[in-house]
Amino acid sequence: MRHLLTTSQLSVDEIHEILAEANKISTGEFHKQKNQRFVANLFFEPSTRTKSSFEMAERKLGLEVIPFEASTSSVLKGETLYDTAKTLEAIGVDVLVIRHKKDQYFTELQDRISIPIINAGDGCGHHPTQTLLDLLTIQQEFGKFEQLKISIIGDIRHSRVARSNADALLRLGADVVFSGPEEWFDDHIIGKGRYETIDEAISTSDVVMLLRIQHERHEHKDKRSANEYHKLYGLTVDREKQMKPGSIIMHPAPVNRNVEIADNLVESKRSRIFKQMENGVYVRMAVLNKALKTVEGGKKDVSKNHQWSIAY
Amino acid sequence: MRHLLTTSQLSVDEIHEILAEANKISTGEFHKQKNQRFVANLFFEPSTRTKSSFEMAERKLGLEVIPFEASTSSVLKGETLYDTAKTLEAIGVDVLVIRHKKDQYFTELQDRISIPIINAGDGCGHHPTQTLLDLLTIQQEFGKFEQLKISIIGDIRHSRVARSNADALLRLGADVVFSGPEEWFDDHIIGKGRYETIDEAISTSDVVMLLRIQHERHEHKDKRSANEYHKLYGLTVDREKQMKPGSIIMHPAPVNRNVEIADNLVESKRSRIFKQMENGVYVRMAVLNKALKTVEGGKKDVSKNHQWSIAY
Amino acid sequence: MRHLLTTSQLSVDEIHEILAEANKISTGEFHKQKNQRFVANLFFEPSTRTKSSFEMAERKLGLEVIPFEASTSSVLKGETLYDTAKTLEAIGVDVLVIRHKKDQYFTELQDRISIPIINAGDGCGHHPTQTLLDLLTIQQEFGKFEQLKISIIGDIRHSRVARSNADALLRLGADVVFSGPEEWFDDHIIGKGRYETIDEAISTSDVVMLLRIQHERHEHKDKRSANEYHKLYGLTVDREKQMKPGSIIMHPAPVNRNVEIADNLVESKRSRIFKQMENGVYVRMAVLNKALKTVEGGKKDVSKNHQWSIAY
Repeated sequence: MRHLLTTSQLSVDEIHEILAEANKISTGEFHKQKNQRFVANLFFEPSTRTKSSFEMAERKLGLEVIPFEASTSSVLKGETLYDTAKTLEAIGVDVLVIRHKKDQYFTELQDRISIPIINAGDGCGHHPTQTLLDLLTIQQEFGKFEQLKISIIGDIRHSRVARSNADALLRLGADVVFSGPEEWFDDHIIGKGRYETIDEAISTSDVVMLLRIQHERHEHKDKRSANEYHKLYGLTVDREKQMKPGSIIMHPAPVNRNVEIADNLVESKRSRIFKQMENGVYVRMAVLNKALKTVEGGKKDVSKNHQWSIAY
Repeated sequence: MRHLLTTSQLSVDEIHEILAEANKISTGEFHKQKNQRFVANLFFEPSTRTKSSFEMAERKLGLEVIPFEASTSSVLKGETLYDTAKTLEAIGVDVLVIRHKKDQYFTELQDRISIPIINAGDGCGHHPTQTLLDLLTIQQEFGKFEQLKISIIGDIRHSRVARSNADALLRLGADVVFSGPEEWFDDHIIGKGRYETIDEAISTSDVVMLLRIQHERHEHKDKRSANEYHKLYGLTVDREKQMKPGSIIMHPAPVNRNVEIADNLVESKRSRIFKQMENGVYVRMAVLNKALKTVEGGKKDVSKNHQWSIAY
Repeated sequence: MRHLLTTSQLSVDEIHEILAEANKISTGEFHKQKNQRFVANLFFEPSTRTKSSFEMAERKLGLEVIPFEASTSSVLKGETLYDTAKTLEAIGVDVLVIRHKKDQYFTELQDRISIPIINAGDGCGHHPTQTLLDLLTIQQEFGKFEQLKISIIGDIRHSRVARSNADALLRLGADVVFSGPEEWFDDHIIGKGRYETIDEAISTSDVVMLLRIQHERHEHKDKRSANEYHKLYGLTVDREKQMKPGSIIMHPAPVNRNVEIADNLVESKRSRIFKQMENGVYVRMAVLNKALKTVEGGKKDVSKNHQWSIAY
């Protein structure tokens, strides 16, 4: 496939290959593109981290970024996502990075757009570069995934991260556990791991991966107060003291401080939250490099080797 | 004149010269600017195509683009277009590209702003680079304009394209015909060509040029349904079958699919809709190059040769 | 200090040093950054002048600008300014330029963000680069500050400019006088200079510095009409005739034409309003260069010499 749309599309070998490339990039081992190449970042949902991270990755690779603002685009005149993407392809953009609130927005694009699309988040669906940066952070810490216990805690149902990460971590050999409010569980995801109480999960895991409460995706405001959530399911100061030696805290951010995690744990010794952001740039550079290989030497002459695999 | 504001301002020779330059650019024959040059794109109306196309053209020429968003500018504090333009001139911008919903917004600017302005669309008025890209597309196809029959169909009154294209095509020797709903006609434009029924126009033209229904410029919503419009005035699948051999379909886009044109004709063999977008980049590069020549060697020392002509 | 937050933070020597550097830059004497450096402009309030001026300064220095739009950022998901700044630091941004409507927004950032912050305006508080560009404009004109009489006229209370400029001008030896509507005065600022009637101030000053009425910061709309304000406190055509020979008019802009100043004085011989904008670019280049020196050779190894002083 030309596109990177989901984590599950990547084989275990391919994941390892991207992580190795990102690691090399993190040490400064990379080259700028020799030819002028163009990318457009189509973000139809608010984002600071992911958008800036792609922008940074693109500039480090020497790409030209064609600005796109959904709020001032022809989408306002009723133009579809497909026609917008096709337009950017027609004017010469080489790679599209897309975030959209619609689950699997890419279904209508994948066979009709010939330039590579990198999914930067679709609704409650997928977010493959977030998974890759999480994996890189875990690998840097432990050097492996096998025999690690990783607990994913919180708003499972609305989280792109829960879905993508659970899938990849299980395939890489980790033990994945879910925790948090039961009414936010999702059988399809939970089926892949197993459930533990919050205290059990936190005290026995190597990685405590908290999820952001996606207020903007909850149809009815949650009746539970932020305080109550923190006490019942958050990483409180007390719970952190029960964590295993050498274990780490992760969160895809933005963090709701004192809800999912106590304010002063965000930048504590165990926290890898800002390390995750730094790693996001390296992972996205690796992914962009791979995508650009599929367009090198003309769009028609793409060697199979340079395409993304489809794991299943 | 320093500025490119209307198509009618260009002489026939000048149009041919720009098309020749754009054609050369389309084959890769162009150079980046040697000195650092700055451009700002002031879009006060939504746009994907025109704005991205200018952004692409600017980057291919190696220009620095100073971002401007009307919605976060001092326009919100009541600053006028003139003061905004003057500010950008004062801080060192070399060329302004402007789209504004006000017809002839440029009247208050043209004698008081000393850097070149390229009009990227004024209200229902002019859109010279759209005309130039349409001309380039026709020239690439037929190698000439004389003895070509070109029908312009649809929302004539609200269309910048109808106005600019009819004028240029007639001067270049083409036979221009209008069609579509009579209540959307405009005597001033129609006076320049002649009217034909939709079926007559489509079956006898070399170029079928459809116009977008400008819903955003209609004061009262059109009572006619999209379906009905398509049947009465659209390029339906059936009408396309009546088109002359070798004839082509054009549309400035964004397309209202199944209104002005049947969905599956948009990317059909006859359609040059995405070719038009590609050509837009080449034409804008040619126009920007010409504008930059007027600022080379200091703003005061501009040779008459490098200025835009005023045809009438 | 790593940051440039207020004018009062700068010693007189440091102000002179920055002005000298800006003057050199204005003659074309400057170099682009050798290494790829990244800056982000976080503007949480509308701006054309200051934002474009920073963008221009950044590009002239060869910096990469990571785009940030508050209206499409995670601020919408409730992310704090601190977390936004920390995120940009984590992904590798080297300098932050921030404008925010909250007075002293930087208090929560200054000890916790390790990359330099340049304040581009905080609420009714400070705007150090505006002061520096005003100082540069005055210095270019008169070659000195001592024995100059400078009157600051208008919306003193809501003006960042009044506050910052009065402080710096007094320290540089100028005679500072305030005028305008009494109900807009501010004892804290006025304490630093003295009050004069509008006619006395205008007819005896070397520099007449008008302030913009900050409609957006007035809680209750001013009952006085624009016309009345102009007559009572504006620089009318008649008042301009009373100005001293060689004296100049300044205004931070955007100008409310025919309110603070008569329309046709804005671009008159005495006006330095657009010269101020041009100087803004040079001053910001000088300030950015200084900020970048604090990040050269790694963030930890910063020589004291390259930091901003704290005057008091």
